[in-house]
Amino acid sequence: MAAGPSAVEAKGVLRDILEALAECEFFDTGAEQPIVRFLHPAELQREFSAQLGENGANQEEIHQIVRQIVQYSVRTFSPHFHNQLFAGIDVYGLAGAWLTEALNTSQYTYEVAPVFTLLEREVLAQSLALVGYPPMPEADGIVSPGGSLSNMYGIVLARYHYFPEVKSKGLNGLPTLGLLTSEDGHYSITKGAHWLGIGTDNIFKVRSDELGRMDVNDLKSKIVEARKRGCVPFFVNATAGTTVLGAFDPLEEIAAICREENIWLHVDACLGGTLLLSNNYRNRLAGIEQSNSVSWNPHKMLGAPFQCSFFLVKGKNALHEANCAGAKYLFQQDKFYDVSWDTGDKSVQCGRKTDALKLWLMWKARGTAGLRHSVDVAMEAAEYFFQLVKNRPGFRMVLPKYQGSNICFWYIPPKMRGKLENEEWHKKLHKIAPDIKERMIMKGTLMIGYTPMVHKGYENFFRMVVNCQPPPTHENMNYVIEQIEHFGEDLGGD
Amino acid sequence: MAAGPSAVEAKGVLRDILEALAECEFFDTGAEQPIVRFLHPAELQREFSAQLGENGANQEEIHQIVRQIVQYSVRTFSPHFHNQLFAGIDVYGLAGAWLTEALNTSQYTYEVAPVFTLLEREVLAQSLALVGYPPMPEADGIVSPGGSLSNMYGIVLARYHYFPEVKSKGLNGLPTLGLLTSEDGHYSITKGAHWLGIGTDNIFKVRSDELGRMDVNDLKSKIVEARKRGCVPFFVNATAGTTVLGAFDPLEEIAAICREENIWLHVDACLGGTLLLSNNYRNRLAGIEQSNSVSWNPHKMLGAPFQCSFFLVKGKNALHEANCAGAKYLFQQDKFYDVSWDTGDKSVQCGRKTDALKLWLMWKARGTAGLRHSVDVAMEAAEYFFQLVKNRPGFRMVLPKYQGSNICFWYIPPKMRGKLENEEWHKKLHKIAPDIKERMIMKGTLMIGYTPMVHKGYENFFRMVVNCQPPPTHENMNYVIEQIEHFGEDLGGD
Repeated sequence: MAAGPSAVEAKGVLRDILEALAECEFFDTGAEQPIVRFLHPAELQREFSAQLGENGANQEEIHQIVRQIVQYSVRTFSPHFHNQLFAGIDVYGLAGAWLTEALNTSQYTYEVAPVFTLLEREVLAQSLALVGYPPMPEADGIVSPGGSLSNMYGIVLARYHYFPEVKSKGLNGLPTLGLLTSEDGHYSITKGAHWLGIGTDNIFKVRSDELGRMDVNDLKSKIVEARKRGCVPFFVNATAGTTVLGAFDPLEEIAAICREENIWLHVDACLGGTLLLSNNYRNRLAGIEQSNSVSWNPHKMLGAPFQCSFFLVKGKNALHEANCAGAKYLFQQDKFYDVSWDTGDKSVQCGRKTDALKLWLMWKARGTAGLRHSVDVAMEAAEYFFQLVKNRPGFRMVLPKYQGSNICFWYIPPKMRGKLENEEWHKKLHKIAPDIKERMIMKGTLMIGYTPMVHKGYENFFRMVVNCQPPPTHENMNYVIEQIEHFGEDLGGD
Repeated sequence: MAAGPSAVEAKGVLRDILEALAECEFFDTGAEQPIVRFLHPAELQREFSAQLGENGANQEEIHQIVRQIVQYSVRTFSPHFHNQLFAGIDVYGLAGAWLTEALNTSQYTYEVAPVFTLLEREVLAQSLALVGYPPMPEADGIVSPGGSLSNMYGIVLARYHYFPEVKSKGLNGLPTLGLLTSEDGHYSITKGAHWLGIGTDNIFKVRSDELGRMDVNDLKSKIVEARKRGCVPFFVNATAGTTVLGAFDPLEEIAAICREENIWLHVDACLGGTLLLSNNYRNRLAGIEQSNSVSWNPHKMLGAPFQCSFFLVKGKNALHEANCAGAKYLFQQDKFYDVSWDTGDKSVQCGRKTDALKLWLMWKARGTAGLRHSVDVAMEAAEYFFQLVKNRPGFRMVLPKYQGSNICFWYIPPKMRGKLENEEWHKKLHKIAPDIKERMIMKGTLMIGYTPMVHKGYENFFRMVVNCQPPPTHENMNYVIEQIEHFGEDLGGD
């Protein structure tokens, strides 16, 4: 107990993780096993004891516990997992993650993270090039623990840019600040407005058009409105790949407005940034290079293991100047190496995970060509799916035109077709997606998300997400439709 | 390239990580290999190419690259790594981390993280009990990406508690808010003050005493001073285990003041919280149960893999009410299971890593008894080290009394002993620690931190950190002294 396992036993514990994954088809794309063995919380508590106690478990018990954890977890690596903006992971990304965990260090200094410092710099450099930003040091970036934090970096840097005194004086004495984002933008802007002391009332939500894209005329109106209300609008959050509809805001037009109005343009490309890798689809983000800052999550569509999020920003030393606190115990200036390689004071964090290796190792193994290909495969499958749904009786698209890796649609069961679509009909439709989802989960055959969209007056619809890992096939796309029809055909009666 | 490795190859890539670790003595405590093969950045760039390109690497190249990454990384798992507040990791914690990475999901909903939801709840429940907080739902907690974020949670919840309108209205219109922390407190309070819009000028730094503990009389004075300056002091950050000196602020006395003054008491126990596991040392944190919120990083002393940080708070629904944004696409209220199990809207993050498993699996394997023992072993080694240094000619303690797992001291080389300790002497002393450190790193024999402490007028001294993993021995403690003497004995001449 005290000394812990011997070297041989320790290696055995880790090898057992590999075996447990193999047993559950982690390495196959066959998807023979259910995607989830769903149990309600009280049932799961009976089947699986999470309880910790005074005495430890022996090796055989740990062996069993590991299997239970795998057994009752959702198989996000299944080709039938379309429930979130992430899914399976690239095995080289996982290898990077395992190495990251084992080498257990923090990204903050070159001293304790020499290789990771080079790796982070390289993936950031490649990402800056993808976005079309100038190379370091004219632009910079940092790997952060997720898109919400990356978007907060954007707000903090914009605020510091216009009001550097905010760092020492705080918001008191400054004018009320206003944030602009589309009504389809991610809720991290809302959480950021609270945390950063700006207030959610000072978010101006710009209308989106029939394709879910920010309406630039309404953006102009909202800037005027903000000023009328006594706010200083200083930050526009445009989205490349909105969370639900997967829409791309018109970045060039928005950038022109921001330039004219002297407002910081941040692009939340957490989802859509991955399309920058594709020659066929990168035009969806045309104009992104005109922005001031960008968030991109390779842990979403691209299949890097969670968490792997990048914040990129134009401006020499912008990150460091805004965030530095100069802690002497960590960033000693009299160290014997060139301390400009220490990146930690650019961060709001102190200890920071060496997440860059995950993407770096994937990228190294695949090459840019391999990553590009995987994006093109996913986008082709998504477009195939869009056409499939569009032409299928009983399915109705939320957006009339193909946008990207999210495809949103209603399923209308046979009994509800050709009926008067009055309030009662819509109320019924609202129940269809949740009911189908419950059935699918209880059988463990498919996971796909649903959501209403109140600001558009839409009742619950399905949000299909196509990711790069595991590489999607037409067969898997067909399967989604078949499953929805299978579980939904008897619904919608009186 | 496109399809990626076959199932057999994929398993091989992961097994190769295990082999690479074994080759570098990851599973031994022998420490035969150098702790670091230090190369300056430009040299490392020549030895190891981080460059990513159009084409991918083949399996043999990846095999070599993995070995290079390990070879040039710092062996934080060495018994001679005392450089940071973290070090080696528990192999069961690593097994949990590998599983976490492979099962790639987000903690936000029970739907995609059923087992992880139970595991997080259990480690939080155990942590609440350790701290002496009431059980859920009277208290609550969340796993966050590090201590800085956990401390920011504390500030945000305190602010929301006194001024709930801050969420919608922001800080404009509110009085200027004041934060109190000791001059030895962690710099995350500084970064938090900037990010959260409070301003670093509104941090009131309380003096610490000769043992590095917050001076409660000065705390009272600073509260008065804050009010005189027109601030509303609403948050006291007390520290259990300060970053450099490892000191424990007197929590009971501070709690009494906070109660009287109606100020939120947050305890940054990121380092020292681990002592709550020990019957012998938990009295260092007496009074912690009287606080409003606590941060604890099991990824520090206890040896959970980075990142594993807990934020704990008293008050039913306090976390949820402050942070919720009610995103409908994710936290649908019409799901078929009890959605009160969805924890995501308590978080400032959206996607959130399932970090709890790391600690949970360690705890399961060791039992509370095993964790307690490992803390007691570490503390005994630390006390042994303290006595060793205290009684050794040429060494001088920064603190006269043993505090905890950090031991700070100066090494005075023979040539500097018995001399007049004038300004020139102190200037010379300031160079000793960095010079010894450079030599040790270049030889790869030992890593130990050093720092000045300007507010106490101290020139550079060593900060020795004793962690639970790998379990420290007296031999390893002796080794530190011998190394410092070996590399320092000729220094300090004219």
